Amino acid sequence: VFGAIAARGEAAAAAVSDRAWLQAMLDAEAALAHALARAGVIEDAEAEAIAAACRAEGFDAAAIGAAAAGSGNPVVPLVEALSAAVDEPAAAHVHQGATSQDILDTAAMLVAGRARAAILADLDGAGAAAARLARAHRDTPMAGRTLLQQAVPVTFGLKAAGWLAGLGEARAGLARVVLAAQLGGAAGTLASLGDTGPRVLAAYAEALGLAEPVLPWHTNRVRPGELASALAVASGAVAKVAQDVVLLAQTEVAEVRESASGGSSTMPHKRNPVAAISALACARQAPGLAATLLGAMAHEHERAAGAWQAEWRALSELLTATGSAAAWLRACLEGLEVDAGRMRANLDLTGGALMAERVAASLAPERGRLDAHRAVTEVLARGGDLREIASPDLLDPAGYLGAAGEFVDRALRAYEEVEDG
Amino acid sequence: VFGAIAARGEAAAAAVSDRAWLQAMLDAEAALAHALARAGVIEDAEAEAIAAACRAEGFDAAAIGAAAAGSGNPVVPLVEALSAAVDEPAAAHVHQGATSQDILDTAAMLVAGRARAAILADLDGAGAAAARLARAHRDTPMAGRTLLQQAVPVTFGLKAAGWLAGLGEARAGLARVVLAAQLGGAAGTLASLGDTGPRVLAAYAEALGLAEPVLPWHTNRVRPGELASALAVASGAVAKVAQDVVLLAQTEVAEVRESASGGSSTMPHKRNPVAAISALACARQAPGLAATLLGAMAHEHERAAGAWQAEWRALSELLTATGSAAAWLRACLEGLEVDAGRMRANLDLTGGALMAERVAASLAPERGRLDAHRAVTEVLARGGDLREIASPDLLDPAGYLGAAGEFVDRALRAYEEVEDG
Amino acid sequence: VFGAIAARGEAAAAAVSDRAWLQAMLDAEAALAHALARAGVIEDAEAEAIAAACRAEGFDAAAIGAAAAGSGNPVVPLVEALSAAVDEPAAAHVHQGATSQDILDTAAMLVAGRARAAILADLDGAGAAAARLARAHRDTPMAGRTLLQQAVPVTFGLKAAGWLAGLGEARAGLARVVLAAQLGGAAGTLASLGDTGPRVLAAYAEALGLAEPVLPWHTNRVRPGELASALAVASGAVAKVAQDVVLLAQTEVAEVRESASGGSSTMPHKRNPVAAISALACARQAPGLAATLLGAMAHEHERAAGAWQAEWRALSELLTATGSAAAWLRACLEGLEVDAGRMRANLDLTGGALMAERVAASLAPERGRLDAHRAVTEVLARGGDLREIASPDLLDPAGYLGAAGEFVDRALRAYEEVEDG
Amino acid sequence: VFGAIAARGEAAAAAVSDRAWLQAMLDAEAALAHALARAGVIEDAEAEAIAAACRAEGFDAAAIGAAAAGSGNPVVPLVEALSAAVDEPAAAHVHQGATSQDILDTAAMLVAGRARAAILADLDGAGAAAARLARAHRDTPMAGRTLLQQAVPVTFGLKAAGWLAGLGEARAGLARVVLAAQLGGAAGTLASLGDTGPRVLAAYAEALGLAEPVLPWHTNRVRPGELASALAVASGAVAKVAQDVVLLAQTEVAEVRESASGGSSTMPHKRNPVAAISALACARQAPGLAATLLGAMAHEHERAAGAWQAEWRALSELLTATGSAAAWLRACLEGLEVDAGRMRANLDLTGGALMAERVAASLAPERGRLDAHRAVTEVLARGGDLREIASPDLLDPAGYLGAAGEFVDRALRAYEEVEDG
Repeated sequence: VFGAIAARGEAAAAAVSDRAWLQAMLDAEAALAHALARAGVIEDAEAEAIAAACRAEGFDAAAIGAAAAGSGNPVVPLVEALSAAVDEPAAAHVHQGATSQDILDTAAMLVAGRARAAILADLDGAGAAAARLARAHRDTPMAGRTLLQQAVPVTFGLKAAGWLAGLGEARAGLARVVLAAQLGGAAGTLASLGDTGPRVLAAYAEALGLAEPVLPWHTNRVRPGELASALAVASGAVAKVAQDVVLLAQTEVAEVRESASGGSSTMPHKRNPVAAISALACARQAPGLAATLLGAMAHEHERAAGAWQAEWRALSELLTATGSAAAWLRACLEGLEVDAGRMRANLDLTGGALMAERVAASLAPERGRLDAHRAVTEVLARGGDLREIASPDLLDPAGYLGAAGEFVDRALRAYEEVEDG
Repeated sequence: VFGAIAARGEAAAAAVSDRAWLQAMLDAEAALAHALARAGVIEDAEAEAIAAACRAEGFDAAAIGAAAAGSGNPVVPLVEALSAAVDEPAAAHVHQGATSQDILDTAAMLVAGRARAAILADLDGAGAAAARLARAHRDTPMAGRTLLQQAVPVTFGLKAAGWLAGLGEARAGLARVVLAAQLGGAAGTLASLGDTGPRVLAAYAEALGLAEPVLPWHTNRVRPGELASALAVASGAVAKVAQDVVLLAQTEVAEVRESASGGSSTMPHKRNPVAAISALACARQAPGLAATLLGAMAHEHERAAGAWQAEWRALSELLTATGSAAAWLRACLEGLEVDAGRMRANLDLTGGALMAERVAASLAPERGRLDAHRAVTEVLARGGDLREIASPDLLDPAGYLGAAGEFVDRALRAYEEVEDG
Repeated sequence: VFGAIAARGEAAAAAVSDRAWLQAMLDAEAALAHALARAGVIEDAEAEAIAAACRAEGFDAAAIGAAAAGSGNPVVPLVEALSAAVDEPAAAHVHQGATSQDILDTAAMLVAGRARAAILADLDGAGAAAARLARAHRDTPMAGRTLLQQAVPVTFGLKAAGWLAGLGEARAGLARVVLAAQLGGAAGTLASLGDTGPRVLAAYAEALGLAEPVLPWHTNRVRPGELASALAVASGAVAKVAQDVVLLAQTEVAEVRESASGGSSTMPHKRNPVAAISALACARQAPGLAATLLGAMAHEHERAAGAWQAEWRALSELLTATGSAAAWLRACLEGLEVDAGRMRANLDLTGGALMAERVAASLAPERGRLDAHRAVTEVLARGGDLREIASPDLLDPAGYLGAAGEFVDRALRAYEEVEDG
Repeated sequence: VFGAIAARGEAAAAAVSDRAWLQAMLDAEAALAHALARAGVIEDAEAEAIAAACRAEGFDAAAIGAAAAGSGNPVVPLVEALSAAVDEPAAAHVHQGATSQDILDTAAMLVAGRARAAILADLDGAGAAAARLARAHRDTPMAGRTLLQQAVPVTFGLKAAGWLAGLGEARAGLARVVLAAQLGGAAGTLASLGDTGPRVLAAYAEALGLAEPVLPWHTNRVRPGELASALAVASGAVAKVAQDVVLLAQTEVAEVRESASGGSSTMPHKRNPVAAISALACARQAPGLAATLLGAMAHEHERAAGAWQAEWRALSELLTATGSAAAWLRACLEGLEVDAGRMRANLDLTGGALMAERVAASLAPERGRLDAHRAVTEVLARGGDLREIASPDLLDPAGYLGAAGEFVDRALRAYEEVEDG
C-alpha cells in the first residue's frame, strides 16, 4: 500500500522485481552457454538450446524462491528447472563450470545496471529542471539563510545552481561505478573448465556487456561497496534539494509551491509538498541500507556465510529507494512554482537586517570596524530600521549579490559541457 | 526469488503484507467508529455500518497504493473508498475526528503487534531448543574458544545456556515494548470532536486492545524507536547463536551439523549450515534498518515531512528480517546434531594446551608463579605435550570445568521460571 | 577544538575519559580482591593491599594504552602494572580467577552507569524546563503545523507537553537498562576458582553495586545492545525538541528564541539557536553508533575476535554524544524565550485558513459535507478571507483547541507522579 | 586507554588531532590572506603579517574549543584570537570575505587530505605484503572454503591475490576523491568581496593545493559523502583480509600465524592474532560513521542547522578508524607466517572430499552425470575414501587448480602496472 510512495521510480522498482532478478540470472546462464561455445567447450547448437530456454516467463519465480530455502540461494533450484527445460545433450552443459555465486553476483550487476539506467534518467530530469530554474532565476533575489536565520541576500538562481551541481556530481559518481561479470567456479579457480577458464570468462563478460575482472571478485566486495556508496550519495544529493523545497514551501515562507501539491481530506486549505516529502522519505532509507552493504564487505574465505546472502535484499531496497527519491524529486522540480514576489517580500521582513554585513562594512572606513559593527547592532537590537544609518541604495538586496550571477553561469556552463560531452 | 530466505518467518512476513497493512488501517477505522458511538457522537447503527465495511477483501490494495502518491499517504484514498462503500448517513461519519496519521500510526502498531507475536513464537521455539541442548549436554566437554583460539575447556551445555540466556533476554525486551493507539486529529487536539475527544480516545484504544497514551504521540517517536531497538537486539541475539553454529560446523571443527544441511549441485560432499547462514543474512539487515528508524525520530512540529513517511517501509522490513532470522534459527536449533565425540577429539588437538592455565596454577605453589608459567610455555613452544610435566588427571578437561554445570542449572532454572510464570 | 560542542555534557564526557575508564577497571580489580577475600580464597589483608593500589592516579594511562596494542586490550598491561604496585604475597592474587574481558566488561558497565547518571540529570533538567513551558503556556494558541504547513490551531503548552512526554519516556527507558557485573574467567566457567566461583561472582557484583547475572554474559551482548538502543532513543527524543526549536526560531516564524543565541562575526543581526543546533549535531551521531554496537552483537564462541573490541570506542562516543545532546537541550529549554504575540500573529497569516476544518464542519449540517468543503476551498483558493462565509467567533483559534488543555494537564500529572514516585 | 588499539594508524590519528584541525584552520586563513593580496584586495605585507601568525603553537586549542560553544563553531573564537595576534592594519583583514564555514570546510579537506596520505601509505604497505604472499605462494595448494566448508582446492597465492585486488581497488577509490577548497562568504555569493570574489577563490584554492570548485559547496555535500564512502569501502576491504587471517589462524585450522601474536596472562599457550582482530575492530566503526555522514547530506538552505556540525566528529573518527584498520592490517600481513604443510594436511582431512567435484566429472562420461554424482555421494556419506572409486592422480589437489596460477599472475601484473604508472 506504500507502493507508489516508496517505489515511485517505477523503472528502478521494476528493475529489481522478482521477475527482473530471475531474467538476470537466466541472462547469466545464457551468456555462460555462449561463452562455453566460443571457447570450444560445448557445441554452438548446445549453447543455442540453452540460451533459448533462458526466458523468465518459462519459470515460476515463486516456486524457485520457495525452493531457495533448501540450498540457501535461488540458483540451485533455477539450474534444476533450467536443466529440465533443455533437452539432452545440451542439458548436461547448463551451468557448466559455474557456481551459484557466479550467477547471482552477475545477475546483481545486471539488475543494478538496469536500475541505474532508470535512476540516472531521473537524476538527469531533475538536473535539467534545476538548470532551467537556475537560468530563469539567475537574478531573482531572495534571502540567503544560514542556520535557518536570514543572513544576506542570494538569488534563487544560485540556490538552484547549487542543486544542479550536487545532482550532477552525484550522477557522475553513480555512472562511474564499474559493473563487472563474475565467474570463478566453486572457489574462484574455474578448475572444472581446465585451462579454458580465462577464455570462457572473457567471452562471458563480453556477452553480458559487463567488465571483465582481473580475477573473480566473489569475496572482494569493493565493487558492491562502491555501488552502495554511490547510491547513498545520490540519495543524499536528492535529499538536500527536497529539504530546501519543503522549507521554502512552509506557510510562513511560501516562496515555492509544488504544482501538484497534495490536499487534505479535512483541511481544505492545505497544499502539501508531497513530492519533496516523499523524496525525503525515500532518501532516508539509503544511509542505513548502504551501511548494511558496507558492513557486509568482510566475506569469509571463498564464499561468505551470511554476508553475501545479506546483500540481495539490501541492494534491491537501496536501488528502489534511490530510484524513487530521484523520480519524486524530478516530479517536484519539473512542476515547481516559484514566487519571486514573495522572495522579495521576505527580504524586507527584517527592516534591512540582511544588509547588516554590508552596512557595517560601509561604515567601517569612517567609524572603525568595531564602532561600525556596534552601530548596526544597536539599531537592530531595538527593532529599528537600518535606513536610519544607511542610504537606501546600500540597503538594496539586488546590489549585494557578489558573484551569485557568475557562479550560476559557471554551474550552467559545467552542466552544458557534460551534456554536450 | 529471495522470498523463502529473506522472509522465512512466514507469519511475520504475512503480518506486514500489503493486505495486512490494509486490514490494520481498516481495523483502526472500525474501532474509531465504535468509539464515536460509545462516546455518543454517532449512532450505534452508523458505527456498525462502518465497521461492517472495514474488511480488506473489499478494497483494492494496489489501487490505494497507487492513489497514495497523490496525497503522500494511503489513508486519504482508503477513506474515500471506505466512505463510498458505506451508505449515508453513516458514510458521513467515516474517519470522523481523525487524521491520516492517526490511522496509519495505529495500523503500524497493530501490524507490529501481530508480527511480534510471530517473532516471539519463533524466539520461544529457538529458546526451547537451546534449553534442550543445554540440558542434554550439561556435562559434555568441549574446547572453549576465545578470539577463535582454543583457550580452556567449557561444556556444550554452557554454550547452549548462554544462547538461551541471550534469546530469553531479547525476547523479554521485545515483549515489553508498549504498543499504543494513536488519535489526535489534525494536529493533536482532537478539536473537531469538541469536548468528547478524550472519551473517544479511551474507547478507541480499548476497542483495539492497545494502550491509551497520555497524549497523542504523533511526533513523539520514542515508541517506534523502542520497537525498532528491541527488534534489532533480538536480531543480534539470534545472530550470536547462528554465528556459533556456522563456526562449529566448519569442516575442520565439525562439532555440530544441521540436520537439513544444504547440498551443492557440483560438490556432492558439501553440508552447508543453510539455516544458520540464512539467519545471519536476515539478522544483518537489522542494525541499518533500526538506525533508519532511530534517525527518523526528529519529527517536525505536529507531523513530520519525510521522517514519518520513512518509517513505513523500514518498519515492515525490520519486522520481516527479525522474524525470518528467528524462524531460521529455530529451524537450525531444532534439528541441530551435536557430535560429542568430535568435541572430545578437538580438546586433544593441542597436546593438552587447553589445560595450560590449570597446569601452571598447579605448579605455582611449588615453583613460583613465574617459573610455572615459564615451564608450561617452554613445553608448548617446542610442540611438546604437557604430560611431560603434569599428571594425567590434571590434564583431564572434564576435571576443569569450574562452575559450568552450575551455570547451566541457573540458566535453566531462570528459563523455567519464566515459562511457568 | 570541537570539545565544547561535541562534549557539552561535561559530566558524561568526563565519565568516559581515559582516566575514568582506568579507574573503572581498577574498581573492578578491587572488587574482585574483596570478593575473593569474602569467599575465603585470599586473606582480607591481601584484598586490602590490592584495593589500596587501585587508584587511577597511580598509573600512566597513556603507557597502558600504548602497551594495550601488544595484547589487544588494556587489561593485560594494567594487571602487570597493578601487580608490580602491590607487594607479595598479595601481588600474586591480583586479577585472580578473572580474564581481561571480565575487567573490561565490568568497567564498561561502571563507566556507562556513571555517564548515565549525568545524562539522566540533564534529561531531567530538560524535562523540568519543558514542564514549566507546558504549564505556563497551557492556553497560548499557536499554529499547529503538519508537513510544515499551518494546519489547525494548537497551544504552545501542548507542544511542550509532547516534548515532556518524549523526554520522560526516553529517560525511563534509559534508567531501566540493567547494568550487570561480568566475571567468568578464561571462558566463562570460573574454572580456576574451583567451586568458589559463583560465590566470588555474587560478592563481586555486590561490591560493585551492579546486578549479578545468571551466568557470564561475555558473548551474550543483549545488555550492551539494550544500552546502546536506549541511548539512541534518548538522543532521538532530544532531537525532536531541538528540531522544533530551530524551526520555531526561523526568521520568518520567530516564535521562540534562545536567550543565549549565538552571534556572527560578520552579520550583527544574527541570533542563531546555537544550543538547539548543537543538540541536533550531537544527537545525529547516535543512530550510526548504535548500529555499530547492535551490529557487533554476534560475538564468536567464548570471546569475540573484533566485535568485542569494537564496542569500546563506539560506546564511549555514544555516551558522550547523548550526554552532550541532553546538556545542550537543557541549556536551550532553560533559557527559551517564547513570543506569544508572534504566535498569535502567525495564526492570522492565512486569513483564517487554519480554521478551514472548523468552518467546513460548521457549514456541513446546512449545505452538506461536500458543498461545505467546496465553499471553503473556493474562498481560500482565490486568496479570500473566511470571514466572508463564517462568523468571527467561528474563526477564533482559541475556540478551536479541543482537548489541548486537558492533554497538557494529563502530561503534567504523569510527570508529577513520576517525580513524586 | 584504547589509544593504541583504536588509533594504531598514528599518522592518520595525528592528522585529526585538535592541533591538526587548528593548524588546518589557520592554513585556510593564511591562504585567504595571500589570495586577497593576489587579487589586490589587501597589501602583500598585510597578507604576510597575517600568514606569519597562522601557526597552531600560538593558540590555545582548549580555550578555543571551550569558546566554540558560544557561537556553535570554533572559527569564531579562532578569528578573534588571530585578529588579536596580528597588528593593525593587517588585523582588520583577517578572515576578510569569509564565513566560518569556509574556514572549517576547507580545514576539513586539509585534514582529510593529510590523513588520507597516511591511510594510503598503510594500504600500500598492506598491498605490498599481499603481493609478496601471492608471489611466494602462487602454487601453494590449500582448501578453498565456501560457507566455511571445505569445497575444492585453491592456492594461498590466489587468496592473497584476491586480498591484493581488493586493497588496490579500495585504494584507488580513496585516492580518486577530489578535495576542494571552500570559499563563499556569508551565504555563498562572496558579496563582501565585490567583484573580486571569484579571483580570490581561485587564488585561495591554488595556495592550498586544493581543487577550485565551480561554485561554493557549503550545502552541496556530495564531496564529504564521497569521502566518507571511500573510507568505509577501504575499511571494508581491510576487514575482508583480517577476517580471513583470523579464520585461518584458528587452532583447528592453523594455516597462518601472526609473527607478533599476542599472549595471554593466564593461558601460556595462546597465540592470538591481535593485529587482525584490532583491524577488524577498527574497520567495524566505519559503516555506522559513514552512515552518519551520508545521512547528514541534506543541509538546509545556505548553512545547515545540525547536519553540518555533525560532520566534524564523525569525519575525524572515520579517518582514525580507517587509518588504524589499515595500519593494523599492514602489521598483520608484513609479519604473517604461512604454514604450507598445514595447508596440505588440511586438504587431506576429508578423505578426498574436496576432489568430489572432479571425481564426479571424471566418472560422468562413463556412468552418466547422475550416476557419477550418486557414486561419489555414496562413498562420502558412509565416511569412505574416494580412492575407492578414483585413481590417486585424480585426487591430487595440485592437479585441480584450474586458472589459479594465471589469476595470480594477472593480479600481480595489474598491481605492478599501477606501481609503475
